[in-house]
Amino acid sequence: MIRCHVVNLKLTLQYDGTDFSGFAAQPGKRTIRSELEKALLKLFKKPVKFFAASRTDAGVHALGQVISFNSKLKIQKAKLRYVLNNLLPEDIRVVKTEEAGGKFNARFSAKSKKYEYLIFNGGDIPVLLRKLAWQVKLPLKLSAMRRAAKYLIGKHDFTSFCAAGAREGSKVRTIYRIVLRKVKRYGITLLAIEIEGNGFLYRMVRNIVGTLLEVGTGRFEPDRVKEVLKVKDRRKAGRCAPSRGLYLMKVDH
Amino acid sequence: MIRCHVVNLKLTLQYDGTDFSGFAAQPGKRTIRSELEKALLKLFKKPVKFFAASRTDAGVHALGQVISFNSKLKIQKAKLRYVLNNLLPEDIRVVKTEEAGGKFNARFSAKSKKYEYLIFNGGDIPVLLRKLAWQVKLPLKLSAMRRAAKYLIGKHDFTSFCAAGAREGSKVRTIYRIVLRKVKRYGITLLAIEIEGNGFLYRMVRNIVGTLLEVGTGRFEPDRVKEVLKVKDRRKAGRCAPSRGLYLMKVDH
Repeated sequence: MIRCHVVNLKLTLQYDGTDFSGFAAQPGKRTIRSELEKALLKLFKKPVKFFAASRTDAGVHALGQVISFNSKLKIQKAKLRYVLNNLLPEDIRVVKTEEAGGKFNARFSAKSKKYEYLIFNGGDIPVLLRKLAWQVKLPLKLSAMRRAAKYLIGKHDFTSFCAAGAREGSKVRTIYRIVLRKVKRYGITLLAIEIEGNGFLYRMVRNIVGTLLEVGTGRFEPDRVKEVLKVKDRRKAGRCAPSRGLYLMKVDH
Repeated sequence: MIRCHVVNLKLTLQYDGTDFSGFAAQPGKRTIRSELEKALLKLFKKPVKFFAASRTDAGVHALGQVISFNSKLKIQKAKLRYVLNNLLPEDIRVVKTEEAGGKFNARFSAKSKKYEYLIFNGGDIPVLLRKLAWQVKLPLKLSAMRRAAKYLIGKHDFTSFCAAGAREGSKVRTIYRIVLRKVKRYGITLLAIEIEGNGFLYRMVRNIVGTLLEVGTGRFEPDRVKEVLKVKDRRKAGRCAPSRGLYLMKVDH
């Protein structure tokens, strides 16, 4: 059956952020948005305006990005994923296509986002996995990092964790949970820092990770994170963790 | 203790072949040899002539490449690996440094080489692992592939499996074993085709894999591989499997 009425489509995407200048369109740059626009233009023969749950930065990966758009679907819905994947470059994959309710909007309906930051803590990351996690050679004290993370849970002004170049507006966000644990990914043991919140400022997750790392290596006391949050000054936090370790895992709507 | 007499060094290397035009030097191209030459020049302040066990093709990975060279080692041997890794790009890693006997030569002393070809047999390879295995969507019949592989074991003229552009000389090589098995790599299940022999012609491993794939999908009967070998005609074998799935695993000297 070919359906021709307008439907509100929700697509779940995975991508390898390595070779992209991030999600948002930028003139002359290869971005996830520009590649999606090209594929959707080919499929629908006209530009498609779509919304995305998160504008991930250059180099950041996604396992659960969500976009949505209204369209007159002229192909069978079951074939949409297959057809789009043939039109997209191999570093972006559509993993799920759903018909969403009429009011669903991937960006404005997003209630919470879960990110995960992967750290290889040791001397020799396998060379073929080097772009999928951040290698930290100094030993990390997880108990101290966990204590520091607790100060960030809840509703706070995260100015100290927001990079310059961010949009104007409130710097208040709510973090629901931060979980640090050893995980097995890609067949090796990594440290995962899972952060879930109602929204994140520019480079906020990576600045939080960088600050927790300062605690893990002993350069910051856990209590200092409480102070960093209070002073609302980016220069007081730790350095920004590189993008290769960061994954957008899931968006709840 | 700083040692200054000439030593014969054996280095074991790993590399991600993705961004290299292969091992051998080529004018204007980024190759593993050229990157090694640059790093050794920086370290020893003069060009170092080294030998390599295998001239891997563009895109082929290595977990156990071996090179050797004579040098006046002016740093502690234990530090050599660390220092070289700091001079090399992140997609080449020295994993072991040893002092070899005076007659050892990584190229000419090589007795056998083990390659492994990784195949993801299914519809959706995880996007972040796509460069580490070849994705084959059609279901593969392993029993037929194993039967076909048996014809290749032993000493044969492998002209049918040698790509155009190979060097002149004998096309006779000995394959010691070909093992097909499901393995867990990078946290996912893959089909590994392990091939060990005394030497390999230009693209021989990938042409063997491509031919076994024709058997696995049912396009070739297992017996046909015997015929392909006999006719000594490259056009009779299957297509060349892409380089991203191929790994140089180990060299025995």
